[in-house]
Amino acid sequence: MTVMFEKVALLGLGLIGSSIAHGMREQGLAKTIAGHAKSAETRRVALEIGLVDSVHEMPADAVAGADLVILCAPVGACGALAAAVSVQLKPGAILSDVGSVKGAIVRDCGPHVPPGVHFIPGHPIAGTEQSGPRAGFAELFHGRWCILTPVPGTDPAAVAKLTAFWEALGSMVDVMEVAHHDLVLAITSHLPHLIAYNTVATAADLETVTNSEVIKYSASGFRDFTRIAASDPTMWRDVFLNNKEAVLEMLGRFTEELAVLQRAVRWGDGETLFNLFTRAREVRRGIIAAGQDTAAPDFGRGRAKT
Amino acid sequence: MTVMFEKVALLGLGLIGSSIAHGMREQGLAKTIAGHAKSAETRRVALEIGLVDSVHEMPADAVAGADLVILCAPVGACGALAAAVSVQLKPGAILSDVGSVKGAIVRDCGPHVPPGVHFIPGHPIAGTEQSGPRAGFAELFHGRWCILTPVPGTDPAAVAKLTAFWEALGSMVDVMEVAHHDLVLAITSHLPHLIAYNTVATAADLETVTNSEVIKYSASGFRDFTRIAASDPTMWRDVFLNNKEAVLEMLGRFTEELAVLQRAVRWGDGETLFNLFTRAREVRRGIIAAGQDTAAPDFGRGRAKT
Repeated sequence: MTVMFEKVALLGLGLIGSSIAHGMREQGLAKTIAGHAKSAETRRVALEIGLVDSVHEMPADAVAGADLVILCAPVGACGALAAAVSVQLKPGAILSDVGSVKGAIVRDCGPHVPPGVHFIPGHPIAGTEQSGPRAGFAELFHGRWCILTPVPGTDPAAVAKLTAFWEALGSMVDVMEVAHHDLVLAITSHLPHLIAYNTVATAADLETVTNSEVIKYSASGFRDFTRIAASDPTMWRDVFLNNKEAVLEMLGRFTEELAVLQRAVRWGDGETLFNLFTRAREVRRGIIAAGQDTAAPDFGRGRAKT
Repeated sequence: MTVMFEKVALLGLGLIGSSIAHGMREQGLAKTIAGHAKSAETRRVALEIGLVDSVHEMPADAVAGADLVILCAPVGACGALAAAVSVQLKPGAILSDVGSVKGAIVRDCGPHVPPGVHFIPGHPIAGTEQSGPRAGFAELFHGRWCILTPVPGTDPAAVAKLTAFWEALGSMVDVMEVAHHDLVLAITSHLPHLIAYNTVATAADLETVTNSEVIKYSASGFRDFTRIAASDPTMWRDVFLNNKEAVLEMLGRFTEELAVLQRAVRWGDGETLFNLFTRAREVRRGIIAAGQDTAAPDFGRGRAKT
C-alpha cells in the first residue's frame, strides 16, 4: 500500500474507469480520486458507490491539480476531452488513456497536450461484456497485459511511473509502437468483435430459422459469439471508425481464408478442413499455456449450472 | 433412480459417450453399460475409470442384447457402425445417435436398421472443447436441449421412452424434422465453428503480428474464438462434409452481411455500425434470459483468477 499519486482524475466512469477506481482503492494508490462522466446518472452512481471522492460535470474541474489523468471514454470522445482539460493539466502530470486504438488517440489528443505534461497512451487488454459504473471490479486487470505506447522523446521516468501504476493494479506491462499496437489489436480484438457482431446479425435475420430457435440452441457454439457481441456499441463504433486501415487489412485476409474453407466445404475436401482445424487447436493450447484463459471445460459453465 | 434399460450400448466413448455413461450411472438408468471404442487406449481408460461394465473391440459384441444403442462417434463414422451392428440389434431396441447433422445420419444409418428396431436420431446440444473418455461429466446435459428427429412412422412409445431418458439425464427435449434441425444447427453451431476456425487460422498466418503476440493479447476478444476452435477436428470435419448445403447457405448470408459492415468501416458510416452492434446486444440478452448462458461478467473468468 504505497500512495503513488496525490490526485488521480478519471475522465469516464464505465467498466474500465470504475475498475481502475476499485483497483486504486484496494491498493491505496491515490490519496484522492476525482471523476468526470458525461451522464448525470453515472456521476450520481459513482459517488453513491464510492468509486471517487468527487464528481464533476466539467472534465476540467476533475483534472485541476491531478498528477495522473486517465481518459476512460470511447476513443472518439477522447480528443474533445483532452481539449477541454488542456489548460488545467498540471506541469509534470501524466496524461494517459485506455482506448483500444492508439493512433487515433495520438492524432486527436496529442495537439492538446501542453509542454511539461507527460502524454503516455495506454491500453489495458482486459474487459467484460458489461458496461457502466457498476460493472467495474478491482481484479479485472489481474494477470492481464497493459500496453503503453509512449511517443518518441517521452520522459522514461514518467513511463516507469505509469508502468508501476499498472503493475500495482495487477497487470503485466508492455511498451510498443503506436502503429504496431493498432495492428496487433486489429487481429486479436477488433476483427473478432466485428466477426462476432456479424455472426449474430446474420442469425437474427434468417427467415427459415426463428430467433427463438437461435437463442434456445445457442449452447452449441453461437453463445460464445454473443458475449463479445454484447460489448458497448459506442465504444466499438469508435474503434472501427478509428482503426480503419488495420481492420480492413485483417478483414481482407479473413475473407481470403474463408473462401478457401468455403471451397473445401463445397468440394468435400476433408483433408483441408481437418488440417486447418488441427492447426487452430494448437493456438488454443498456446493461450492456455500463457495463462490467458482457463482450460476448464466450458469455462466451468457446464458444471456451474449444477 | 429407476432402471429404464436393462442394457445400454455406447458406440464411441469420447466427450459425449462418456458424459452419457456418467449420467446413467448417477441416475441408475441402466443395469449394464457396454462400450465400444475404436482405440484400444480409450477402451482401457473407459474400463479403468468405470465408465462401462464391459468394453468391446467389435461394435457388434457391445450391442448384443442391448435395449438402447447410442452411436457416439463422429457423423462420418456412424454409417459403418450401424452396418456393423445391424444383425445384432435386438427387436424392440432403440437405436439412436448424438451427431450434429441428422440428414446424413438418416441417409447413412437408416438402410441398416432392421425391422422392429426403433431408429430415432438425436442430438444433445451440449459440449465442451475437450475430447476423449476422460472429458465427460454427468452435468454436461443439465439444462441443455436435446433434439430428437424421428422419421415419419416411428413408434411414439419409443420416442417417449428416449425422451424420458434424456430428461433423466437433465435435458429438455424437442422433436424436430431432420432438415429443419440441420438448418438450425448450421446457424447456431456449424457456422460459428467455421468462422472461429477461420479467425484463428487468419491470425496464425500473419507476418506482421507474431503468434506469441496473438496469444499474449488474446484476452481482448480472440480467446473466445479459440475455445470453440479447439473442438475435435475429426468431428468437425465430418459435420462440414455432411451438412454442406445448409452451411454454404449460412456462409453466403454471413459473407453478404460482412460486406455491408466492411463498407461501413471503409466509408466511416458510424450509424450503420452502431445500429448493428445494438441489435446484436439484444440477442445476447435473449440468450441469458433463456438460461443458455450466464450474465456473470467474462463468465467469471476475470474474477476466478483472484
